[in-house]
Amino acid sequence: MNLYMNLARLLEDRIEQGLYRPGDRLPSVRALSTEHGVSLSTVQQAYRLLEDNGLAVPRPKSGYFVSSKTLPALPEVGRPAQRPVEISQWDQVVELVRNPPRKDIVQLGRGMPDITSPTLAPLMKSLARLSRRQDMPGLHYDTIYGTEALREQIARLMVDSGCRLTAADVVVTTGCHEALSSSVRAICEPGDIVAVDSPSFFGAMQTLKGLGMKALEIPTDPLTGISLEALELALEQWPIKVIQLTPNCNNPLGYIMPEARKQQLLTLAQRFDVAIIEDDVYGDLAYTYPRPRTIKSFDLDGRVLLCSSFSKTLAPGLRVGWVAPGRYLERVLHMKYISTGSTATQPQLAIADFVEGGHYEPHLRRMRTQYQRGRDQMTEWVRRYFPAGTRASRPQGGFMLWVELPEGFDTLRLNQMLLARGVQIAVGSIFSASGKFRNCLRMNFASRPSPAVETAVRKVGETASELLANLQTAQP
Amino acid sequence: MNLYMNLARLLEDRIEQGLYRPGDRLPSVRALSTEHGVSLSTVQQAYRLLEDNGLAVPRPKSGYFVSSKTLPALPEVGRPAQRPVEISQWDQVVELVRNPPRKDIVQLGRGMPDITSPTLAPLMKSLARLSRRQDMPGLHYDTIYGTEALREQIARLMVDSGCRLTAADVVVTTGCHEALSSSVRAICEPGDIVAVDSPSFFGAMQTLKGLGMKALEIPTDPLTGISLEALELALEQWPIKVIQLTPNCNNPLGYIMPEARKQQLLTLAQRFDVAIIEDDVYGDLAYTYPRPRTIKSFDLDGRVLLCSSFSKTLAPGLRVGWVAPGRYLERVLHMKYISTGSTATQPQLAIADFVEGGHYEPHLRRMRTQYQRGRDQMTEWVRRYFPAGTRASRPQGGFMLWVELPEGFDTLRLNQMLLARGVQIAVGSIFSASGKFRNCLRMNFASRPSPAVETAVRKVGETASELLANLQTAQP
Repeated sequence: MNLYMNLARLLEDRIEQGLYRPGDRLPSVRALSTEHGVSLSTVQQAYRLLEDNGLAVPRPKSGYFVSSKTLPALPEVGRPAQRPVEISQWDQVVELVRNPPRKDIVQLGRGMPDITSPTLAPLMKSLARLSRRQDMPGLHYDTIYGTEALREQIARLMVDSGCRLTAADVVVTTGCHEALSSSVRAICEPGDIVAVDSPSFFGAMQTLKGLGMKALEIPTDPLTGISLEALELALEQWPIKVIQLTPNCNNPLGYIMPEARKQQLLTLAQRFDVAIIEDDVYGDLAYTYPRPRTIKSFDLDGRVLLCSSFSKTLAPGLRVGWVAPGRYLERVLHMKYISTGSTATQPQLAIADFVEGGHYEPHLRRMRTQYQRGRDQMTEWVRRYFPAGTRASRPQGGFMLWVELPEGFDTLRLNQMLLARGVQIAVGSIFSASGKFRNCLRMNFASRPSPAVETAVRKVGETASELLANLQTAQP
Repeated sequence: MNLYMNLARLLEDRIEQGLYRPGDRLPSVRALSTEHGVSLSTVQQAYRLLEDNGLAVPRPKSGYFVSSKTLPALPEVGRPAQRPVEISQWDQVVELVRNPPRKDIVQLGRGMPDITSPTLAPLMKSLARLSRRQDMPGLHYDTIYGTEALREQIARLMVDSGCRLTAADVVVTTGCHEALSSSVRAICEPGDIVAVDSPSFFGAMQTLKGLGMKALEIPTDPLTGISLEALELALEQWPIKVIQLTPNCNNPLGYIMPEARKQQLLTLAQRFDVAIIEDDVYGDLAYTYPRPRTIKSFDLDGRVLLCSSFSKTLAPGLRVGWVAPGRYLERVLHMKYISTGSTATQPQLAIADFVEGGHYEPHLRRMRTQYQRGRDQMTEWVRRYFPAGTRASRPQGGFMLWVELPEGFDTLRLNQMLLARGVQIAVGSIFSASGKFRNCLRMNFASRPSPAVETAVRKVGETASELLANLQTAQP
């Protein structure tokens, strides 16, 4: 861990232990610099991290203060199996994706963005306009690359992430799913080992399962991401083929991996000559502007396969994703060809139209603000309604909150009870190859806060409390 | 080969040798029965086969006559490698799918249906209407199965193919490509052997390549399909996991496998306990009504995975296919999940609307008639413009003609020359795992016959003649 991260963690511990109370002034930058023998800029970096995570608030000319809201403590760093494992949990994943949403159940479990924003209206207009065109462009076969107009817009958008791409570097896919699975299949064979962050997006892990690969889960910090130290050890010990992770607005933890660590990760990948599959599907939804850089943006030798989609920023039903596969372009093309041949044409043209018409940025601005408010509200509800000792992530983007209950708690059981009470969550175990994180859950805060959502979160908290009481009674 | 097929082939040979000339009366059913010592019904079956293939014409109360049009001879039965092979030809396939269609090139190579028919207008209206709906159903995640409304319509449509399916038996996919690749992956592992018809759809074979499987090409008759005798030998000799074929309106040969042979194939599959992946993507485009039965319709123990799509019947840009995977349903679901997660919602809803509104059958009727005329016209152009000795398939459905030039001819070279002359064809070698059929090509006759298409076909024929003359000069 870096110096500034160490310092931030130390300050955080003191805040959590109550040494500094909400509203208290925190030590000055100069004092901390002297106390810990580190540079002023290191202290400033540490404070910025605390600020990003909602623990410290700067006041002009007065220094930093403890945020007046007490936040739940951060989740613990997971301790996954220290060897590659076959992936399980398909049964639980399929439960999440098998059934159409029921109107009588509040869906807190799925990765659905808010699609009710009026800023999406131009997209619907484009779709309608395309359907009325005499030449029916939506009915033709697309090329294997995807439509040129959309690939140009994607390359343009990714400038904000530090990437210099051209349309020729981008392959459109049917959602980020196809980007991820085409990428993995372009590099790996059955039996190969893939290092993943932990917790990790279940869809990407089920892809490894379906393709016969093994996952090596690397401990992951809820603020700074995958542990580079643990990853380095793993790379020394195992013949890892690829590192698959979500460094920006991580799903499910919500952190943004600091830039320096992204660069260090890339250096590690170069040293051990492994590829990186970078899932950036939430990257455009970071609460800070400009959006964070991708690992891809530092990549010089084409080893990063950057995967994304418009499913989280616009709407998942469009099924338009993309991959910038670097040196693996030809292999990825083959894998995309055999997976779907090509991607539906009309949604691609509509999105290209939407972005080119200047509607994408205003839409993102609105969603970012809404999601950040959603995070604050959801965090507050967790603090209010969940059992004492509940920990929660501090998302820096996206619309997912990761909640950790005491060890021994079973969120599978919780979810079963909740379904009868009209609420659905995503159970933590599906975010681990081997079914860890059973005491965790993920909740969606995409929709605008409402009494209905508050009631749903309250039910989750109350049901968790009931279960926890039973658990504590059962233990002698 | 069955008795009636033997007899039909014998009569066909006599017609081709000029023993019976166009317009001649053919021997009576009774006479042939006596001559060959077979039953009356065997002779009738033989005549029906000749009739289906445009060689014989029945006249009421007068018996059968040789069709007054002389048709090119049928392609020869291929002699593929008699062992499983790694699949090559990706370079050629990617040439076909890499670039957007150029307006200055007549595309005879791709599997594009005619999408200009006014009978498609209601589909475009549905798409437009869906885009204007306030609740924006097209933006939501679909379930992993596909939308219920569409799956119900598919089950209903497949009654015509003899299948008794319910919505629960059907999984929607992103085109038939995803149906095929999910099916193969549900059953096979890398290194496994898949028996295929030969020639065979290149997309399905590239899927095997991409997944690390081997293809065992089975000789295939241009009138009756895959040789059951050769298949049986292969099943005895090799550990074949699955048989993958297109029995209805075969791509590229256009035949419809006779019903009895479909049943025999299924019996073989049962005896050797292998699965069948049945590609029915052109099945609804058979020129006869009612449409031919599927192998699936005889399947009692769920070993047939029936794959299809609306790409050939409606439009490929919609990317809506489906699979009825029988006993492999759960595995196929997993494979679909990791491939794309779900299929774009709006095209599914629009197609469901179109079929439910009664627009599908009238559209099919029109297209069947158009394609049958297209076949006759294209066959006539081949007879007129291609070098003597050119053979051609006699498609019973769909919109593809398979043309065979003399041995030693190179259609790759032909295609290169044609591109400079503004025409593109599909080279024969991509329809073989090992690059056979180099002297063959496939042409699309979907669009209404026009001077532009005639000119294009004439150019193909003339360029072929030039090349052939060079070839014959070069050979001593």
